[in-house]
Amino acid sequence: MVAQPVREDKFSFGLWTVGWRAVDPFGDATRPALDPVEAVHRLAELGAWGITFHDDDLIAFGSEDTVRQRQIDRFRAALDETGLVVPMATTNLFGHPVFKDGALTSNDRDIRRFALRKILRNLDLAAELGASTYVLWGGREGSETDAAKDVRAALDRYREGIDTVAQYVLEQGYDIRLALEPKPNEPRGDIFLPTVGHALAFIGELEHHEMVGLNPEVGHEQMAGLNVVHGIGQALWQGKLFHIDLNGQRGPRYDQDLIFGHGDVLSSFFLVDLLENGGYEGPRHFDYKPLRTEDGTGVWESAAANMRSYLLLRERAAAFRADPRVREALAASRVDGLAAPTLAEGETVTDLVADTGAFEDFDVSAAAKRGYGFAALSQLAFEHLLGAG
Amino acid sequence: MVAQPVREDKFSFGLWTVGWRAVDPFGDATRPALDPVEAVHRLAELGAWGITFHDDDLIAFGSEDTVRQRQIDRFRAALDETGLVVPMATTNLFGHPVFKDGALTSNDRDIRRFALRKILRNLDLAAELGASTYVLWGGREGSETDAAKDVRAALDRYREGIDTVAQYVLEQGYDIRLALEPKPNEPRGDIFLPTVGHALAFIGELEHHEMVGLNPEVGHEQMAGLNVVHGIGQALWQGKLFHIDLNGQRGPRYDQDLIFGHGDVLSSFFLVDLLENGGYEGPRHFDYKPLRTEDGTGVWESAAANMRSYLLLRERAAAFRADPRVREALAASRVDGLAAPTLAEGETVTDLVADTGAFEDFDVSAAAKRGYGFAALSQLAFEHLLGAG
Amino acid sequence: MVAQPVREDKFSFGLWTVGWRAVDPFGDATRPALDPVEAVHRLAELGAWGITFHDDDLIAFGSEDTVRQRQIDRFRAALDETGLVVPMATTNLFGHPVFKDGALTSNDRDIRRFALRKILRNLDLAAELGASTYVLWGGREGSETDAAKDVRAALDRYREGIDTVAQYVLEQGYDIRLALEPKPNEPRGDIFLPTVGHALAFIGELEHHEMVGLNPEVGHEQMAGLNVVHGIGQALWQGKLFHIDLNGQRGPRYDQDLIFGHGDVLSSFFLVDLLENGGYEGPRHFDYKPLRTEDGTGVWESAAANMRSYLLLRERAAAFRADPRVREALAASRVDGLAAPTLAEGETVTDLVADTGAFEDFDVSAAAKRGYGFAALSQLAFEHLLGAG
Amino acid sequence: MVAQPVREDKFSFGLWTVGWRAVDPFGDATRPALDPVEAVHRLAELGAWGITFHDDDLIAFGSEDTVRQRQIDRFRAALDETGLVVPMATTNLFGHPVFKDGALTSNDRDIRRFALRKILRNLDLAAELGASTYVLWGGREGSETDAAKDVRAALDRYREGIDTVAQYVLEQGYDIRLALEPKPNEPRGDIFLPTVGHALAFIGELEHHEMVGLNPEVGHEQMAGLNVVHGIGQALWQGKLFHIDLNGQRGPRYDQDLIFGHGDVLSSFFLVDLLENGGYEGPRHFDYKPLRTEDGTGVWESAAANMRSYLLLRERAAAFRADPRVREALAASRVDGLAAPTLAEGETVTDLVADTGAFEDFDVSAAAKRGYGFAALSQLAFEHLLGAG
Repeated sequence: MVAQPVREDKFSFGLWTVGWRAVDPFGDATRPALDPVEAVHRLAELGAWGITFHDDDLIAFGSEDTVRQRQIDRFRAALDETGLVVPMATTNLFGHPVFKDGALTSNDRDIRRFALRKILRNLDLAAELGASTYVLWGGREGSETDAAKDVRAALDRYREGIDTVAQYVLEQGYDIRLALEPKPNEPRGDIFLPTVGHALAFIGELEHHEMVGLNPEVGHEQMAGLNVVHGIGQALWQGKLFHIDLNGQRGPRYDQDLIFGHGDVLSSFFLVDLLENGGYEGPRHFDYKPLRTEDGTGVWESAAANMRSYLLLRERAAAFRADPRVREALAASRVDGLAAPTLAEGETVTDLVADTGAFEDFDVSAAAKRGYGFAALSQLAFEHLLGAG
Repeated sequence: MVAQPVREDKFSFGLWTVGWRAVDPFGDATRPALDPVEAVHRLAELGAWGITFHDDDLIAFGSEDTVRQRQIDRFRAALDETGLVVPMATTNLFGHPVFKDGALTSNDRDIRRFALRKILRNLDLAAELGASTYVLWGGREGSETDAAKDVRAALDRYREGIDTVAQYVLEQGYDIRLALEPKPNEPRGDIFLPTVGHALAFIGELEHHEMVGLNPEVGHEQMAGLNVVHGIGQALWQGKLFHIDLNGQRGPRYDQDLIFGHGDVLSSFFLVDLLENGGYEGPRHFDYKPLRTEDGTGVWESAAANMRSYLLLRERAAAFRADPRVREALAASRVDGLAAPTLAEGETVTDLVADTGAFEDFDVSAAAKRGYGFAALSQLAFEHLLGAG
Repeated sequence: MVAQPVREDKFSFGLWTVGWRAVDPFGDATRPALDPVEAVHRLAELGAWGITFHDDDLIAFGSEDTVRQRQIDRFRAALDETGLVVPMATTNLFGHPVFKDGALTSNDRDIRRFALRKILRNLDLAAELGASTYVLWGGREGSETDAAKDVRAALDRYREGIDTVAQYVLEQGYDIRLALEPKPNEPRGDIFLPTVGHALAFIGELEHHEMVGLNPEVGHEQMAGLNVVHGIGQALWQGKLFHIDLNGQRGPRYDQDLIFGHGDVLSSFFLVDLLENGGYEGPRHFDYKPLRTEDGTGVWESAAANMRSYLLLRERAAAFRADPRVREALAASRVDGLAAPTLAEGETVTDLVADTGAFEDFDVSAAAKRGYGFAALSQLAFEHLLGAG
Repeated sequence: MVAQPVREDKFSFGLWTVGWRAVDPFGDATRPALDPVEAVHRLAELGAWGITFHDDDLIAFGSEDTVRQRQIDRFRAALDETGLVVPMATTNLFGHPVFKDGALTSNDRDIRRFALRKILRNLDLAAELGASTYVLWGGREGSETDAAKDVRAALDRYREGIDTVAQYVLEQGYDIRLALEPKPNEPRGDIFLPTVGHALAFIGELEHHEMVGLNPEVGHEQMAGLNVVHGIGQALWQGKLFHIDLNGQRGPRYDQDLIFGHGDVLSSFFLVDLLENGGYEGPRHFDYKPLRTEDGTGVWESAAANMRSYLLLRERAAAFRADPRVREALAASRVDGLAAPTLAEGETVTDLVADTGAFEDFDVSAAAKRGYGFAALSQLAFEHLLGAG
């Protein structure tokens, strides 16, 4: 029996996920456009708590102001009716041909300025709709040949762009934090800030770094073959996990955006464990694409599947942590030993150097022989994952 | 005709590179041990400028003090004789079974203490030999199952470890900077600080972050499918390229440590271009492994090959930058446009919002139509690389 | 100075390459549609020899017969005018939503029948235009979940489909051979016949296996991290290299379709060497995509770049093979030794077992010590590639 | 509650798995040598059915005949005592330096002859011990530079080698079949016959192809990012799944040899489903490595874990197939539709061309609209995998 999602679970979806018409590099749309108002109602019925959007998901690029306002009003009415919230919004800086060489790092200054204005405009709407996080995915910020960009100039412009947006948020007094979303490649050959790490490092160089964090996407980190639990763990450790995009991916290949859980299952298990026990309080946001083979029914079944997967994994992770055999195994693996500082309280490096027990008299050979019990621990996790804990 | 290496080129090699006996996961050593003294003489003859080492490369793990001193003396004499310098040294925290669960992040506190002491001991020697960089590669800092480590505790310990080492350097008054070397995996399933980005971000959390930078390895970044030129570019941009390990790798697979140039040739070309023109003044350090198929002759031919490749690529990159057709192509691609700030001097975000030319009156359609000429530029680079510029 | 392409070089391009409008998973078209007639003229001017097409490239899906005929007539007139030939044609079985679950292996039998008819129809046109190769790329033959397909049933249907097409060719008396094009993934999560190997193996199970071979694409094999020179070498060895798609790819990631040479340069070098010296007489067909950043000028410059790259690499490979130092190095590496049968002429396995020199008296230790000189050989190749041979 | 393994499950292990001393490219052995006799007893106690070996696992390379015979006798006695069988054996053609450039495809003819003799010698022992499968993994058959090998000559020699071995088996009248084991890379940069597909294709060129099949290893196929269920499915379809190596791998990286199930969990689930329902009757052979962090206890716990994982997955797969909701979902996805031939019984391609219902009158638009229900099906599999079916 899988639990039903409730608002407290803080499940949210991008308008562009359930609304994806399934155009891919080799094929045309297989589904009709989805009215954002319908998306709101359907997601609310399924037990979701929030909905998120790019400006162009809600209002077609280049719409006249009256059309724009009408769309906003209809959307807002649906939100009011259903109680769905807008925890996050973002800007489409990749779909229109004008952004073909990027937005904040386009070689064309006018385009960079246009991109900034497009961001600011949707930031106003995000604030108006109550969003507390504004995501920036630089999908087109990159290159296919290293001759095309001076990386350092590109990072200068990227920093300038984010600093400018942060400045605007401050000046407007919005209660919004910015969250960068890294990705290694696709649609550009190589994208700047390709991983959680590169984006975290970049944030350290920003003027208003305290209001900028991350929106890591599970599949993006896995496209680089990286351990997403380690990446999210580091983001949490640095106080920068502002938001998260949950989905599935099967290793280094095109961006699959599978249902959460339908990629690397073990990683999904440990990720849910980390999110639930690691102090993350934000939305559980699904950034997936319903398979191109699906019709409307499949779209909503897949939306529900994301939440079911999360809840089931949450249950499995809780049982794992509660199992006395697991606690024993963790102790046998000395996992808690890692929490203890390496130097004693008040011990200096000079003290350490003077401690012959640490080196001269240390029984290396005995220490080398002790096993860590990771195989047993890993198997316990596997069996709990499979509901056989 | 390929140029001959000279001392000014600052080419250096690890003792463990030419000294690799070619044990791999499936096979025994194919070459006899190499005396470090011979390595010094041979490298000097080939035109190298520096030699680097792990403690255990020079002095077998567990050697008595007199044996240790004798080895150091012989090594130093060889350095004096040849004029070879020791620009960098590092610690072997991965070979001995005691480090099977890592060193600074081992679950075993005693092992963490032992590891710190092993580092400090070799730091003293590094200082004595005049090294200005001390590298820390955490090859065993990681896990094969996410149950085995609390990532945040691991990062706490990692930080504590590096802070302690930095403190020691300061207290001893050594003129040495620390350089972390990231790697995504192998020999652990997943290694902490897997990429240039993750390591840069971690450094920002250190107490003495100003004295800690990076020693990125070309192949390590490529094992994650990442663009190493982008990664090194970001490290330079953040002022953190303290040292570099040059070699070759053919994408995501085991760590190949090929001769520099024998992996991703285009990336090698642009990397040399960046190092030569990007303000990097440090050693050009080769961290490669002579193929297991080679005998002694092959070892020294491969050592020479690294330097020949670099010099040849340097020549090609210089010709590329000097070619008027390339300058024209760069201009046509508006590459210099990226150096210009997006906001005018003194312009505020409020000014930007008020500039209708940036958004309301911007001719999106015309901007979208302009091509960037990257294909032509990329082809010019390819032809210059092939000596047909 | 790069040589100019001539007809004898047998360079050909797909209509869909220069005609790609640059729709990608995250963005709209950046270029207008290209009239096939213009493509013919432009390619002829650039020195190409042939042009290839999917049915839907030439005639929009669902066109009325008169429209269809008019397009064919216009195209044929352009061919006649320019002398360009049509060495190959293929079917679009992936763009229309009806093929969202595949064509020859769709779970829907009616769709499989429709797909077969679509193939046969364009085969008639291919024969009419003089094509000697008909390519089948099963881009949508695959799945995202293993529950969706019984692999063995899928292969049964795939075989039935290809056998039916082959039967048709025979019955019509067309002088056409079929060529399968493998790809590991994208647009499906996993595609059947993912590599050169899997497709070659499948062909062995076909009724008319003698008339079915391969059209390997450089980048597709590299998306699986495989050595494309080895793959093409095996296809040649099995007499199955019927056609080839040349382009560039930077390892496991989305299908990049870069200009030939702009991916793995070393592999491109050895591939050209193999094609020129390995007995392959077919077209040098470029299946690339002009970068989405390019306008019309960039499209034609990139088309020309493919041919320039090939010619330059051909020159470099020829110089490599002609260099006496290379011949010496090859001899030192005992490369020719591999051509000699392991058993002597007439020697049986019983004789071998009786030969004590082969085992009992074999000096293993001496044989183990000999180096292979691959480092030196590899460096010679690198330097020749860079025009410094 | 996880089921206990019994002999009927046909679980087998390589001597080299539990006996792995944990030498890796960066570290020394962490465990003492394991006596093969102890391995036999321990595995029997754990419920295993069979044990397999390389010649050098049982008898150190270069042992004198009397030592050799003593080892064989002790091993055989242990087998007799425990009832453990030897279903498979293989040759170590990669550990000794003499094989540094390969065995059957070494550039050195004498080494090729030596390799053949080493195979034949152990084949005799395999026959004596009752093995019915003899595996050939060509771990060193490959190269790091394409200049080092003419691929076609290498495949000639490879074929000659396998043909010679097959001839020997026939002449000796052994009831043994040969099974090739593909791997893409490591320890060589690129290995010949890199995937299930390439090896299957190669077998088609052998003289005694009917007695040669495959021993695919789960992780090896996944190192190329390929779907192992598709690969094994194709091997079964071609009647060539002679044996299988089960283990875990986390995508393209070094060869991890994790416990079965501890890699790609979804793939493990569908693989067990295929093995159990696809007509495979052979051993379930685990080719894994106990983590280097483990001591002796961990070795045997990890051995048991492989079997537990398999049994648990078998249970989950059986429940999945038995669930009426799954059957409904499969029907809704038209999965069975793929089993029906595309042409009607007796229908010719001419008939198909004449059937206007198949093309001219086919309602493409209606067919395109139908969804396939793969999302729902996939989620059912996920929930069954997690024991929540």
